[in-house]
Amino acid sequence: MLVQGKAFRSIWHEEKRVLIIDQTLLPHRFEIRELTTLADCVTAIEQMQVRGAPLIGATAAYGFCLALEEGAGDAVLADTAARLLASRPTAVNLRWAVERMQRRLSSLPETERPAAAWQEAAVICEEDVAVNEAIGRHGCALIEEIWRRKEDTVHVLTHCNAGWLATVDWGTALAPVYQARRRGIPVHVWVDETRPRNQGAHLTAWELGAADIEHHLIADNSGGHLMQRGLVDLCLVGTDRTTATGDVCNKIGTYLKALAAADNGIPFYVALPGSTVDWRLEKGLDIPIEERSADEVTTSQGMDQEGKVVAVRICPRETPAFNPAFDVTPARLITGLITERGVCTASRDGLAGLFPEAVGHARP
Amino acid sequence: MLVQGKAFRSIWHEEKRVLIIDQTLLPHRFEIRELTTLADCVTAIEQMQVRGAPLIGATAAYGFCLALEEGAGDAVLADTAARLLASRPTAVNLRWAVERMQRRLSSLPETERPAAAWQEAAVICEEDVAVNEAIGRHGCALIEEIWRRKEDTVHVLTHCNAGWLATVDWGTALAPVYQARRRGIPVHVWVDETRPRNQGAHLTAWELGAADIEHHLIADNSGGHLMQRGLVDLCLVGTDRTTATGDVCNKIGTYLKALAAADNGIPFYVALPGSTVDWRLEKGLDIPIEERSADEVTTSQGMDQEGKVVAVRICPRETPAFNPAFDVTPARLITGLITERGVCTASRDGLAGLFPEAVGHARP
Repeated sequence: MLVQGKAFRSIWHEEKRVLIIDQTLLPHRFEIRELTTLADCVTAIEQMQVRGAPLIGATAAYGFCLALEEGAGDAVLADTAARLLASRPTAVNLRWAVERMQRRLSSLPETERPAAAWQEAAVICEEDVAVNEAIGRHGCALIEEIWRRKEDTVHVLTHCNAGWLATVDWGTALAPVYQARRRGIPVHVWVDETRPRNQGAHLTAWELGAADIEHHLIADNSGGHLMQRGLVDLCLVGTDRTTATGDVCNKIGTYLKALAAADNGIPFYVALPGSTVDWRLEKGLDIPIEERSADEVTTSQGMDQEGKVVAVRICPRETPAFNPAFDVTPARLITGLITERGVCTASRDGLAGLFPEAVGHARP
Repeated sequence: MLVQGKAFRSIWHEEKRVLIIDQTLLPHRFEIRELTTLADCVTAIEQMQVRGAPLIGATAAYGFCLALEEGAGDAVLADTAARLLASRPTAVNLRWAVERMQRRLSSLPETERPAAAWQEAAVICEEDVAVNEAIGRHGCALIEEIWRRKEDTVHVLTHCNAGWLATVDWGTALAPVYQARRRGIPVHVWVDETRPRNQGAHLTAWELGAADIEHHLIADNSGGHLMQRGLVDLCLVGTDRTTATGDVCNKIGTYLKALAAADNGIPFYVALPGSTVDWRLEKGLDIPIEERSADEVTTSQGMDQEGKVVAVRICPRETPAFNPAFDVTPARLITGLITERGVCTASRDGLAGLFPEAVGHARP
C-alpha cells in the first residue's frame, strides 16, 4: 500500500538483504529495519517489530534464507525451525511457513538450498499478496451488499490490526475495506485500540489515515455500546489460528466483540488465509494461549509532549498484572469466514467445502 | 479505609472546609484538595477529581453548603441545583442528592439554610457509609458461599472503580471484597484497567494494594478469556444509574463483561445503593450516555521514567476518536442486584420487594 505516495510492502528483500517496517515505532516513526541474521528474524517476531499471522510466516521464511547463508546442513534446518517455532507460540502461520520451508529445502542438496530458500520466501510473499487481494474481493461483496440495502455509509468495527501491516500487503480484515474504498463504497471504521499493545491505535488508525478512510478510534470497551445503539453494521476481524471446526483464536478481546455482535444481531466475519487453519485442531479451547509480559499491561506506550516515544506506568509500582495475548471465539458466534476462496460458514463443512484438499489433514 | 495506617474517607468537612482526595493524581500521588466554592465542587465533579455515583452525590451536597455561605435565597438554591446537575449528566445520585438538598432547604427560612445544609450533607455522608457497609455484608455472603463450595480462593472480576474512592467509604462493588478479607475468606480480584480513563489501573489497583488484597491488573479485553478458562468465580460491578426494571448503566465495557459471564454461566452481580435507582425510568437504552472528550481515548496517562505524570498520545496526531462513557447492561444478563437491603433479582419485582416505598415513584 502507499505510504506518502510510495508503494510499500511490510517485508521485502533486495539481493540478500531482508527489510521490514519496524512496527514497534509506528505510528510515531516510520523506519525501515534490515534483518541480517536468523537471530534478527527471531527477535523481530518476539519483539513484534513484525506481527500479524501472515507477516510472521513470511518473516520466518526469510529466517531460513538468512540462516542458510551461514551453512545449509540438515542440522541448520532443524535448528532454524526450532528457534523460529519458539518465537510466538500461537501463530499457526509460523508453523505453516516453517514446515513449508523445511519440506522445500530438506530434499535438496545442501548447495542448492540457499538459493531455493530465497526463491521460496519470495513465492510465499507473492502468494500472500494474492490471497489477501482475493479475501478483499470476497469481503468487499459483503460490504457492498450492506451498502446497497442501507444506502448509507457502512460502519465496520475491527479489533487489533489485520491490515496490510499484518500481512505482506492488503491485509486480511482490512482488505475488504480497502477494496470498498477503491470502488467508491462509503465506509467508516470503528478502530478498537486493542490494549495492551494498542495495535489498533498504533497501526490500524495509522493505516486507515494513510489510506484516507474515514475512521474513529474507540476504547476496547465501547464496541458493545455502539452495537446496542445501531452504530455498527459489520464486524471484521482477523485470526492467528483457526480450528478445523471454525473456532477462531485472535487477539485478546475478539471474543467479547463476537458476543456483542451476536447479542445485537450484527454480522461478525473473520477474514483469513487458508494457511491460518490448523486442520489438526478440533477445539479452539485446546489452543495454548501465549502469556506475554505483565509490563505490557502495567504501561502504555505513546508520544509525550516533547515528541519522545515513552512507556508510562498506569498503575501503582507494585501492582501485578496478567497478560494473555489471545482469546478464542467459538464458531457459533461467527457469521462467516472470508477466505481467498470465498465465504463459508464457520464450521467443518464450511471449511471443507472450500479446502477439500486439506480435509485429509483434519483427522490424522 | 486506611491509607498508610491512617483512616480516610473520600470526602469530609472540617468546620466549613470541604476536603477531598484528588483522584486524578492517584495512584502516583496522594493529595488532599480543599473545595472552597460551588465552582470548585462543579469542577471537581467535571474533571473527575471526585467520581463514582455516591461520591458525586456527596460532593453535590457539599456544593450547596459552600454556595449557601454566599447567600441562601431561593434563586441561589435553584442556580446551585442547575449548575450541579449539568456537571455529569448520567449520574442519578447527583440528581438524587441535589433534589434531597433542595427539599430539605427550600422549606426553611433563609437564615437557617446554611447550617441545615452542612448538617444534611454530613447526614448524606453517614448514610452512604452505612449503606455501603450493608451492601458489603450482603455481597460478602455471596463470596462466602462460593468459598464454602469451592474450598479455594474466590476469583472476583471487577470493572472500573466501585471501591471506597467511589463512595464516601467502603465502596459498592468492592465492599463485599473488603468484608470478605476482614473475615479471612481468601479472595483475589481481576482488575479491568477500564480504558479510557483507567480507573481500574489508577484507583482499584491502588485501593486493593493499600488493603493488602490479592489482585492482578488485566486489559479490559481479557475478561472473556479468563471466564472461558474457569478463572473467574463471580463478577461484581457498580452502577451509575439503575432503571426501575433492573437495567444498569455503568462504565463503558460493563455490558461486554456481562455478556461473557452469561455465556460462561458465571454469576454477574451489580452492587448499588437504592439511591442509584431511577424509579422513573423503564428502559436502560433510554438513558442518555455522556460523551466525553476524544483526548481521553487518544492519550493514556501515567508516570514516565523520571517520575512525572504525563499524558502520552497513542495514535497518529490526526486520528479522530469517539468516547461514550457508559453502556447499558440489560437486566436479563444480571444475576442479581446487591443493595443495602439485601440481594434481589434485576427486575421490577425484585427492586419493588426491597424498596416498596419507592414504587409509587415508578409510574408517575
